[in-house]
Amino acid sequence: MKIIIIGSVAAGTSVAAKARRNREDIEIVIYEKDSDISYSGCGLPYYLGEDYIEREDLTPRTPKWFKNRFNIDIKTQHEVLEVDTVHKQIKGCNLQTGTTFIDPFDRLVFATGATPIVPSIANINNHFTFMLRNVNHADLIDTYIKKEKPQKAIIVGAGYIGLELAENLKKRNIQVTIIDMSLLPAPNLDEDISIQVKNELDKNEVQFIGSETAQAIEEHQGKKHVVLNSGKKISTDMVIVCVGVRPETTLATKCGVKLGITGAIEVNQYMETNLKEIYAVGDCAQSFSSIDNSPMWVPLGSTANKMGRVCGDFITKGNFAFQGILGTGIFKVFDLAVATTGFTEKQLQKKNRNYVVHHNIKPNQSEYFNTSKEMMIKMLADKDTGKVLGAQIVGENGVDKRIDVIATAISFRATVHQLSHLDLAYAPPFSTTKDPVHYSGMVLRNAITERNKTLTPRELMEANENIMVIDVRASHQYNEGHIKNAINIPLADMRSKALTIDKNNKIVMYCNKGVSGNAAQNILQNLGFKEVYNLSGGYNNYVLTKSYLLSSK
Amino acid sequence: MKIIIIGSVAAGTSVAAKARRNREDIEIVIYEKDSDISYSGCGLPYYLGEDYIEREDLTPRTPKWFKNRFNIDIKTQHEVLEVDTVHKQIKGCNLQTGTTFIDPFDRLVFATGATPIVPSIANINNHFTFMLRNVNHADLIDTYIKKEKPQKAIIVGAGYIGLELAENLKKRNIQVTIIDMSLLPAPNLDEDISIQVKNELDKNEVQFIGSETAQAIEEHQGKKHVVLNSGKKISTDMVIVCVGVRPETTLATKCGVKLGITGAIEVNQYMETNLKEIYAVGDCAQSFSSIDNSPMWVPLGSTANKMGRVCGDFITKGNFAFQGILGTGIFKVFDLAVATTGFTEKQLQKKNRNYVVHHNIKPNQSEYFNTSKEMMIKMLADKDTGKVLGAQIVGENGVDKRIDVIATAISFRATVHQLSHLDLAYAPPFSTTKDPVHYSGMVLRNAITERNKTLTPRELMEANENIMVIDVRASHQYNEGHIKNAINIPLADMRSKALTIDKNNKIVMYCNKGVSGNAAQNILQNLGFKEVYNLSGGYNNYVLTKSYLLSSK
Repeated sequence: MKIIIIGSVAAGTSVAAKARRNREDIEIVIYEKDSDISYSGCGLPYYLGEDYIEREDLTPRTPKWFKNRFNIDIKTQHEVLEVDTVHKQIKGCNLQTGTTFIDPFDRLVFATGATPIVPSIANINNHFTFMLRNVNHADLIDTYIKKEKPQKAIIVGAGYIGLELAENLKKRNIQVTIIDMSLLPAPNLDEDISIQVKNELDKNEVQFIGSETAQAIEEHQGKKHVVLNSGKKISTDMVIVCVGVRPETTLATKCGVKLGITGAIEVNQYMETNLKEIYAVGDCAQSFSSIDNSPMWVPLGSTANKMGRVCGDFITKGNFAFQGILGTGIFKVFDLAVATTGFTEKQLQKKNRNYVVHHNIKPNQSEYFNTSKEMMIKMLADKDTGKVLGAQIVGENGVDKRIDVIATAISFRATVHQLSHLDLAYAPPFSTTKDPVHYSGMVLRNAITERNKTLTPRELMEANENIMVIDVRASHQYNEGHIKNAINIPLADMRSKALTIDKNNKIVMYCNKGVSGNAAQNILQNLGFKEVYNLSGGYNNYVLTKSYLLSSK
Repeated sequence: MKIIIIGSVAAGTSVAAKARRNREDIEIVIYEKDSDISYSGCGLPYYLGEDYIEREDLTPRTPKWFKNRFNIDIKTQHEVLEVDTVHKQIKGCNLQTGTTFIDPFDRLVFATGATPIVPSIANINNHFTFMLRNVNHADLIDTYIKKEKPQKAIIVGAGYIGLELAENLKKRNIQVTIIDMSLLPAPNLDEDISIQVKNELDKNEVQFIGSETAQAIEEHQGKKHVVLNSGKKISTDMVIVCVGVRPETTLATKCGVKLGITGAIEVNQYMETNLKEIYAVGDCAQSFSSIDNSPMWVPLGSTANKMGRVCGDFITKGNFAFQGILGTGIFKVFDLAVATTGFTEKQLQKKNRNYVVHHNIKPNQSEYFNTSKEMMIKMLADKDTGKVLGAQIVGENGVDKRIDVIATAISFRATVHQLSHLDLAYAPPFSTTKDPVHYSGMVLRNAITERNKTLTPRELMEANENIMVIDVRASHQYNEGHIKNAINIPLADMRSKALTIDKNNKIVMYCNKGVSGNAAQNILQNLGFKEVYNLSGGYNNYVLTKSYLLSSK
C-alpha cells in the first residue's frame, strides 16, 4: 500500500508517523510545496519577539529526521497540481527543477492546511507589507525589521496571532497600532472578555482602532501610511496583515471532494471524505463540536495532530475515532492570558440555548503570596440540565490550568454541580482551598436551581422595569463610585435594614466582585423577599461592561 | 433550631456559613478552644519563610467578621469538655475565666480537626523544640528564630509540611537537616517520585537522613543535638517535629460516636455519624475514595471545606452528597512541584489491582521558551478497563495544571484513551501541541492493548530471565553511560540491523526518556518480533531508580 499525503505541517506528518508506527510494510510519501516542514505556526510571533528563539527552533524536524526515524519520504518544494481520483494518481511539479511528474497512490490524504485571507486593500503588495502564516513570512518580517529598523508597525487584524504579534513587536521597541473591523480585539470572544484585552493593549500603549478596515496602503517619498475606511490615515513603517485564514481546499474541490457548511472539507470521524480512500486532516478539514455535534472549523495545531493520528491509524486498520473539539483556545497578550473552551455567550444566543451565565473574579493562589493575581472566569451552563457549556477566562496567572480543567470536565458532560466537587490539588502556591473552578460551579448551580439568581451588568442596564439596586459595600467604597440610583446598605447592616424594604420589590445586590452581593442576597431571600438577584461579577464587571457599551456608541 | 459546631478552622466555619446561607431562622454557635479561627494551616510554612506574609494574612477572618456577615457566634478560648447526646447539650469551659457552662443544641457538628502526633523522643518538651500545626506554633517558631538566630535546624518528618518548611527555613538562612523513618522523603508517594524530592533536597543543600528516628533531644552547656536511633548525634540550634497528624476524636469517642477503619469518625455522604443529629466534618472525619469507595483519611483544607458545605446544607434540608476524594495533593519544595492524585503504585499493589504504569518525561511548554522545564508524569491505569487510576507528577512548571486535569478526568472515570482526545488549550507559552497528559494517555493505551508493552526500570532490574537490552540512542550518548550489558543500535540503524537479531528474543529498548525507544519498539514489532518492551521513562528514569535502590542497601 502506498499513502500520499499533501502537506507536511502538523496534520500531514502526524498521519505519516502514526501509519508507520502501525505498519512497516507500506510506502508513505509526503509532498510539500514549501521548503519548511513540520513547523510551529503558533510559534511565529514568539520567534519574532523573543531574542533567544532561533530559526531552527521553529523547524526542529527535517525530511532526513523523518526518513531516519519513520522511513517516510518528504519531498519539499514539490507542488501537487492535480489529484486524479479515478486513476488514483497525482500530478505534481518539482519547483526546483520545474519538471512535472506523476505518482500513483492507494490512499490520499489532504493536509493542505489553511491559507491567509488577503483582504482587498489597495496596494497591499508592497515591500513593507507582510503576512504571517509560515516560516518564510516570519523570515521576511525579521529581515525587514533588522534592515529597516521600523519604529512603527500597523497590524491589520486583532485575532490571536495579531495580538501575540503586537506583544512581540513591542519587545523589539516597535510602536504598534492594531486595526480591526470589530469593535473590540479578539472578536471571537464575548465582549466582556474582549474589553479586558482592549484594556491590556491600552495599558501597554498599543493603539487599538476598532470598527475600521484598511482601504489602502500608500507610500509617498518614503512616508508610509494606511488609509482607513473612515478616511483617516495612520502613518507607519510597516504593515502586517493577519485577518485570519480560510481552509485551503482548491485542490480538493477540483477533484470532487465535498466541502462542509464551514467551507472546510467534510469528513467523518475517521477523516474520510466523500470520495473512497481519500481523506482530509488538519486545518483544511471540518471538525465538529463535542458538545452538540454541530459542524465547527477552528484551525489549530493541537486539533491537526489529533486528526492526523486518527487518520493514520484508520488507514492502517486501527479504530480510533475523532472525538470532535470544544473550540478550546488560549493566547497571551502582554501580562494577560486569555482562554476559551466550549461555547461563548454569543454562540449560545445564536443557538437559542437556555443558559445561565456567571462572572467569577478570584485569585489564582493564596492571596498572601505577592505573585497572586485575580482572574475572571465567565462560565456558561445549560439552564435545564446544569451541564457546563463553556467558559472564558482572563487573568495573569493560572488561566491555562482552569481552562484545561473546565475543558476536561465539559468533555465528560459535567454539570456545574460536579465542578464544585472536584478534588483538585491545593497548596498555597498553586491555588486556594476553594479553587476558582469550584466557586464557578457552586454559584452557577445556585443560579440554575434559582436559589441564587444572577443578573449580568448588561441585563441590568438594558432592563426597562423598576429594579431596586443595592450597593452592599462599605460606604467609602460606595462614595468612590457606584451604579446610578443604587442605594448603599453595607452587608453588616443588611439584617436590620431589611425591615425597611418592601419584600415585593425586584432587587439586585452588588459588591465589588460578587461574593458579598451573594451573601446579602441570601439574607434577603431567607427573610422572605420575593425576587432578589446578585450582579454577576459585581461592580468590577459592571465597570467593564459600561466601558464597552460606551465604546460601541 | 440551634446548631453547635466544635472547631472553627476550615470545616467548622464552612458548615456554619452554608447553613446560614440556606436559612436565617436558626441559631449557629461555634466553640473554639484556641484564640485563632479559620486560619490557613497550609500557609504556616510560608508565613515562616516569605518575608512579606504578615501574621494577619493567616487569619483574615475574625469572629466579628462572621457575626457581621453570617450572624454566627464564634466563641474562642471556649473548650468543649463533654457532649451529652441524650440531653442534647454540651458542657464547656471558658478558658479565659475558668468558668464552666452548659449549652443545649438541636444538631451538633464535630469539626475538631487533627492533632499533631507527638513521637516518643526523650526530652521533647524543651525550649528549642516545636510543633507546626497552628498559628500559635508558628508564632513560637518565629519568635525563637528572631530572638535566637539559629544557624541550624532539624526537622523531624519529611511529609509535605516538613518539606515545605525546609525550603522556608532555608530562605531565612538556616541550614536544615531532615530526619525520617522512611528511606526517602514524601514517603506517601512512590519511591521513583520520592527519589526526585531527595535529589532536590541535595541540590539545595538540605541534608536528608532516611531510615532513622529521633530517640532523644539533648542540651549540654548550650550545645543542642538530636540523638538518632543509630546512636548518631546531629548538632542543631532548634528542632521542629512534624511527623504527621491523627484525627482528633477524643470528645467524639467519649460520647459514643463510632470511628472508622482509618481511626477517623465514620460518616455517611451527608456527614452523619452513627448518632442521630450528630455530624462530623473535616480532618476528624473519615472520607472515601471516589475510585473504589474504600475508606480514606487524607486531612486537607480543600476536603474540609467540601465536607463542611455538604453538612451545612444537609442540616438545613439541602441535598448535596459528599462525593469522596481522590487523595489529590501537591507541595512545593524549592524549585520542584510534586503532586499526586488517585492511587499510587504502592496502593495499587496492596489492593492487588491489575495495572499498567508509565513514566512520561515532557516539557511543560514549547521547548524554545527558555522557561520551558521538563516534568515526569507517572501514570497508572487499570489493565482491564483502561481507566486512569492515579498519577504522580514532578517538575518545575505546569505540574499543578496537569494533576488537576488528570484529577478531573479520574472523577469522570476517564480511560487513558479519552485523555489523549481532550481538547486542551494550546499556545506555545502554555503547553505543547500534544500536551504531556495526551502523551501519557496514548502510551498507556498502547500498553494496555499490548500494542506497545512497557517495562519499568525496576522490573528490568529484578527480572531473572534473559532479556536483550538495546540502547537506541546515538553512540556518543551510549558511551557516556548505559545500562549494563545493553548493546547500542541507534534508532536510525534499527531497520537494517534488525535483520541480525533473533525475532524470538525478549527485548527491551530504551532511549533517554522513552520516545525513541517507543519508535524502535514499533519497528521491531512491525517486522515480526515477538516480545519487545519499551523502558518506561527511559535511561533517565533508570538512573533515578538505580539511585534509590542503591540508597536502600
